[in-house]
Amino acid sequence: MTRIIGIDPGLRFTGWGVLESSGNHLRHVADGVLATDSTDSVPDRLRALHDGLQALFVRFAPREAAVEETYVNRNGAATLKLGYARGVALLAPALAGIVVAEYGAMAVKRAVVGTGAASKEQVAMMVGRLLPGAMLRRADASDALAVAICHAHHRASLLRVAAGARMA
Amino acid sequence: MTRIIGIDPGLRFTGWGVLESSGNHLRHVADGVLATDSTDSVPDRLRALHDGLQALFVRFAPREAAVEETYVNRNGAATLKLGYARGVALLAPALAGIVVAEYGAMAVKRAVVGTGAASKEQVAMMVGRLLPGAMLRRADASDALAVAICHAHHRASLLRVAAGARMA
Repeated sequence: MTRIIGIDPGLRFTGWGVLESSGNHLRHVADGVLATDSTDSVPDRLRALHDGLQALFVRFAPREAAVEETYVNRNGAATLKLGYARGVALLAPALAGIVVAEYGAMAVKRAVVGTGAASKEQVAMMVGRLLPGAMLRRADASDALAVAICHAHHRASLLRVAAGARMA
Repeated sequence: MTRIIGIDPGLRFTGWGVLESSGNHLRHVADGVLATDSTDSVPDRLRALHDGLQALFVRFAPREAAVEETYVNRNGAATLKLGYARGVALLAPALAGIVVAEYGAMAVKRAVVGTGAASKEQVAMMVGRLLPGAMLRRADASDALAVAICHAHHRASLLRVAAGARMA
């Protein structure tokens, strides 16, 4: 049984979700959103995000972490701001000594809905079905659990491949 | 006498420089570059940068910090990566409980050379003259000291304005 944290970083809202994966079985542990005050300075907001993530790593002690690869848009200033939040989000698991897997949006949709063309609503609905008990108060939390589910599926496949290799 | 740290963030090289400012007088304390291994994962590199900055804040105990505002270019992926490093660099002073001032490239050049149209070489040369003893092994360290000098000048002006207001 492996505990996985998924993170969907943003300076205003960072979604997070924790689940447990055991073979093909998934269990919801917790999810939520870390919000920062847009009237605070950027360094203070990054500190709030950092402290919030540190608290989650202490509270849930995940063994693996997953983050969705970021869509880079044409607005350089917005991309830079997203980079700040994403940098702090990638730092948290590194400080906890655990590896972070990154998955593209298509891979996440395929893992959760079965098709890379799924809508955001379909992803949220399937996350709710796959993980009874999920709060999903905001789309950010649903996206964070989706990338954690994607990682659970991929690592299960990798373990099967490794077991097959050992048997061969 | 106020100790100021200037930071020029980058994922590969982050320049830093510490000086002491007292009225119009400046004194060089230390400067250098934090480098990360480009063959490591991005989270591990962010952790190395974070640990390096934390060590500088412990060692030099600066009271104020200054960072140059970032030029956002058209390459979204490069901007995002710079955002990671900049986010971690802005986090460090916030964790130390000190304020970070940001200055545009023109303001930095004006403060160091006297004109916003100065070349990088002119800035480096003037940093060396204003701060005898600076190592400046790389341009990143020189840029970090330049933004610290800019902050020293601005805060001296602000203090004069405040003193004038008290006398009036």
